Amino acid sequence: MHTDTTAEGGAKGGGDFVIQGDICWSTGPRALKTMPDSFLVCKGGKSAGVFDRLPRQYDALPLSRCCGKLVIPGLVDLHTHAPQFVYRGLGMDRELLEWLSSHAFPEEEKYHDLAYACKAYSLFVEHLKRGPNTRIMVFATVHVPATLALMSLLEESGLVSMVGKVNMDRNCPDGLREESAAASLDATEKWLETCAAHKDKYANTRPILTPRFIISCSDELLRGLGALRRELNLPVQSHLCENRAEIAWVRKLCPASDGYGAAYRDFDLFGSALPQEAAPTVMAHCVWSDEKEINLMAERGVFAAHCPQSNANLSSGIAPVRRMLSAGVPAGLGSDIAGGTNSSIFRAMSDAIQVSKLRRTLLNIDEETLSLEEAFYLGTAGGGAFFGKAGMGYCGSFEPGADFDALVINDSALATLSNLSIHDRLEQTVYICDNHRIEAKYVRGRLIK
Amino acid sequence: MHTDTTAEGGAKGGGDFVIQGDICWSTGPRALKTMPDSFLVCKGGKSAGVFDRLPRQYDALPLSRCCGKLVIPGLVDLHTHAPQFVYRGLGMDRELLEWLSSHAFPEEEKYHDLAYACKAYSLFVEHLKRGPNTRIMVFATVHVPATLALMSLLEESGLVSMVGKVNMDRNCPDGLREESAAASLDATEKWLETCAAHKDKYANTRPILTPRFIISCSDELLRGLGALRRELNLPVQSHLCENRAEIAWVRKLCPASDGYGAAYRDFDLFGSALPQEAAPTVMAHCVWSDEKEINLMAERGVFAAHCPQSNANLSSGIAPVRRMLSAGVPAGLGSDIAGGTNSSIFRAMSDAIQVSKLRRTLLNIDEETLSLEEAFYLGTAGGGAFFGKAGMGYCGSFEPGADFDALVINDSALATLSNLSIHDRLEQTVYICDNHRIEAKYVRGRLIK
Repeated sequence: MHTDTTAEGGAKGGGDFVIQGDICWSTGPRALKTMPDSFLVCKGGKSAGVFDRLPRQYDALPLSRCCGKLVIPGLVDLHTHAPQFVYRGLGMDRELLEWLSSHAFPEEEKYHDLAYACKAYSLFVEHLKRGPNTRIMVFATVHVPATLALMSLLEESGLVSMVGKVNMDRNCPDGLREESAAASLDATEKWLETCAAHKDKYANTRPILTPRFIISCSDELLRGLGALRRELNLPVQSHLCENRAEIAWVRKLCPASDGYGAAYRDFDLFGSALPQEAAPTVMAHCVWSDEKEINLMAERGVFAAHCPQSNANLSSGIAPVRRMLSAGVPAGLGSDIAGGTNSSIFRAMSDAIQVSKLRRTLLNIDEETLSLEEAFYLGTAGGGAFFGKAGMGYCGSFEPGADFDALVINDSALATLSNLSIHDRLEQTVYICDNHRIEAKYVRGRLIK
Repeated sequence: MHTDTTAEGGAKGGGDFVIQGDICWSTGPRALKTMPDSFLVCKGGKSAGVFDRLPRQYDALPLSRCCGKLVIPGLVDLHTHAPQFVYRGLGMDRELLEWLSSHAFPEEEKYHDLAYACKAYSLFVEHLKRGPNTRIMVFATVHVPATLALMSLLEESGLVSMVGKVNMDRNCPDGLREESAAASLDATEKWLETCAAHKDKYANTRPILTPRFIISCSDELLRGLGALRRELNLPVQSHLCENRAEIAWVRKLCPASDGYGAAYRDFDLFGSALPQEAAPTVMAHCVWSDEKEINLMAERGVFAAHCPQSNANLSSGIAPVRRMLSAGVPAGLGSDIAGGTNSSIFRAMSDAIQVSKLRRTLLNIDEETLSLEEAFYLGTAGGGAFFGKAGMGYCGSFEPGADFDALVINDSALATLSNLSIHDRLEQTVYICDNHRIEAKYVRGRLIK
């Protein structure tokens, strides 16, 4: 057996290997599995399971001894905006629609300039590499060249991602508005063709249909995107019920639809009645989704990306994530840069727990708050399931067959004075983890940090 | 003129010097003063003012060129618990009273062991040195030797602090309960005498009366502490209206008092009718303080330490900090380790803004949310005023005469792609600042990082 006492040992090339450490992962929304001083096996970029004693068949594999360190699945960011990274933490005194006009749209216009886009996207991707997320769902801008450049940068980083060229043909500045629904659809199809033609180049990076939201897409554009979704069985990402002024506007724009989610459904951009057969949809926010909409999401397998920090920053509110979980809506967490200011999904986990407590306390409602187990599930297996449904391999779990996305975390400085359980060390890590505690980060079995 | 291009230049010894940079500070709760590429002068450990051109009289002083860097006052933590540092981020599924029993009290019992206390307190103080706070109000435990050890560690660190030996003679575990009110008072007096006898040793570290809260102090003890406060004109720190179960219990314990704050007042531990003449009181939390209590605080000059993260973590709620500011209650921010998990007052600033938005959105009340200016004021000059009133020199401001507590922040990596105003750079810094961006930290004119 080859051994190595560093987290990096034996695993650089993406081959098969074993990590020994204090291993922990979600086996369901409320179930945390912890295995102290155990062995996590990577075979062909996938987990072959966790064992308290290493089976003899793996004896010959390189072993990384990470004894005393936490080994957990990589974190999944189900919703973020790459072009908003450089101005995160700005304009936080505004609500959504005003902030889009004052900050988001003027910045996104700059991505017409490919050189600017490459510079800004490089900062974004370099930042992500250092953090705990291994997979991300990303909005780019309307610009195809910049979107392809972002995809190349993400591919080089080793992260797994789905990236959307954004569609917008109304209610946005001239510099950002696509000329017509036809022009937007045409650009989208050409972009998808380019991605398909370079499929070998984009092993970890896939395109996803990305109507920004109903406000910025005409009926014709939404209908066209719905047709494209059906034809190519593509996944979809968009925004849903984030802000009350936004919802009122959508009601006016789609008077025939029975709600915001139903409007997406009416354009065939809201999952499927047979969700197991179709590429999935993820909707960010769902702050004001009512019972009917929550049930519609559950029926059609539409994922919710809960973005607690963004929803606080932009005064949107607090999403009923506990109700969504109870109703069977598949869900994960999003950083929503730059509505949110922190990209780490650890931060999203602790934020999600905190706001669920404020929701119960302030509204005085008899609703369970989000537990550590649930927040950890949302940020790992919950979000990771989206990638599985989209045909990119599921992650966020160490069960055999899951993609091998893993973090090795050195929490020794946090836990020196007490003999903490793995559960408690995970709780501390969720609340405090700094990037420098992440000693190694594997994506699909490949060491990228 | 001696110049130096590093933040440290010329200022290590605590002498007089000048810092050139992009300077920014609060001149009132809603007023931010920004002076690009200006000169901040330190004379005798105090600010001599900020100048857009350096007056000739300061020509001979050493100059630190921090051009392009933000120079702001040091941050003030008005409420934290030193012995809770090592278990921060644990037990976050509990509310206050349960969490005190399950986590706080068992840990605090260990501080009977001086060796353990020194080890744990060293971790706490080392951590604080690296962060943005320059002044802190600290709860220790009931144990006098450990409290003195903490004071020595804080003094060595160069930070300015007020430290409380905690008083508790009821409703806590045997291992933590002081034998009687008389024993608690006696230990407190001896501790104060030791501090007075070594006044030269504790230039930056002062004792403060610290009844934990009404629940853990008998009437006799509270009365005795009130007498001690009057006799020695001592400042006081405690907890007020954090949690609804706590408040109900206090009502039972003090049936004759007209509320929680009024109970402290009845024991003479709640500021003074002539606040300008007496050492000040600070009360942490005030989540459920009503109009009457808020007015009582304003009348008696009682400071509120707003601890937004802790109040979310322990499901306490959201304090009406905007109402307190409007009513004229002096206020600042607290990290409340380990109810809060992050010691940085930058985090407390952004948390305070976020929860004030959630408060308005969820309660649907017509109340202004906290602005960046107000949050920055609270975390600098607002809290810094407490030290001034307690006779330790005020800070959090660069007006001439303020103690020279300052941070030099390199935010160049955040602001590379846009030409941001100082206001916007401050906003980004509040939301994102990592400790490694703090290039220099001065306390009373002395460089401590």
